[in-house]
Amino acid sequence: LSSFDRITVGALAVVPGPGQTVTFVRQERGPYAGWWLLPGGKTDFGESLEETARREAAEEAGCRVGPLRLTGAYEMRVTWARGDYHLLMFAFRAEGVAAAPPDGFYGHHVAGVRQDRPSRVRTHPTVMRILRDAGVADHPQAEIDAALAREGITMTSYPVGAGTLVR
Amino acid sequence: LSSFDRITVGALAVVPGPGQTVTFVRQERGPYAGWWLLPGGKTDFGESLEETARREAAEEAGCRVGPLRLTGAYEMRVTWARGDYHLLMFAFRAEGVAAAPPDGFYGHHVAGVRQDRPSRVRTHPTVMRILRDAGVADHPQAEIDAALAREGITMTSYPVGAGTLVR
Repeated sequence: LSSFDRITVGALAVVPGPGQTVTFVRQERGPYAGWWLLPGGKTDFGESLEETARREAAEEAGCRVGPLRLTGAYEMRVTWARGDYHLLMFAFRAEGVAAAPPDGFYGHHVAGVRQDRPSRVRTHPTVMRILRDAGVADHPQAEIDAALAREGITMTSYPVGAGTLVR
Repeated sequence: LSSFDRITVGALAVVPGPGQTVTFVRQERGPYAGWWLLPGGKTDFGESLEETARREAAEEAGCRVGPLRLTGAYEMRVTWARGDYHLLMFAFRAEGVAAAPPDGFYGHHVAGVRQDRPSRVRTHPTVMRILRDAGVADHPQAEIDAALAREGITMTSYPVGAGTLVR
């Protein structure tokens, strides 16, 4: 994130891979740099939230995704020594399964792409909650809450249940 | 809206009044100035979406509201001669019924407050859709779509159904 003084809006994609896996990327930028996260990023002015999720899935993870459903909206507020941030993130789950990117793919601003079962990936607690709401992981709620508290993150979740198709 | 070059984030409140009414305010500012709208406005950095809805219900409509449920998230994008805008609006429905503000109440930046049945209020098409998703009005979908098209507004709706309590 380039700015810590205004609300940032973004979107991400939950992209199922073969065999109960999900597509993760190792982010090099943003407040959670260094973690295995989901492909996503800031929404450009005039770009729709869904377009952001689709674009980031392609740019960061090399995945072309079909129909997307909103599975939750998330508000994250943090006060850190290096600055506050206030982020609104929209999570879209892709229908179907996406193949891993071809060998030699290098995503924008990511150090790697990996399709793996969520239980085998040490991911950020915000991602655990998003995956849980999307119905593709089952990290215990108490574990997620404890990890968010350790990180000092206030995360308000608006899960959408079975997913809302854009109309 | 003070800015037309970045995404604006806001929240509004659907506040039921006595006898199947809803609380409307006549907005003096923003892209829909002059219409009867719902109390709402921009989210301040660090303020939660729910806090925004609660604050605006008090400041603009003089209503103190109890528990709030998200009933939908809305993305509105417009290209107008006087400038583009890109707005994310979160709609929260108040539980229970709020009394009208006392005589002599003047809300911030609004020309009036009115509790009336939605079918009797000439409101903006974005509001028609929000009220419909919140389960308090039944404007025909085709009428809403036609009115949005006349206004040149691209509105993407993420209704949440029965409402998601903040967790």
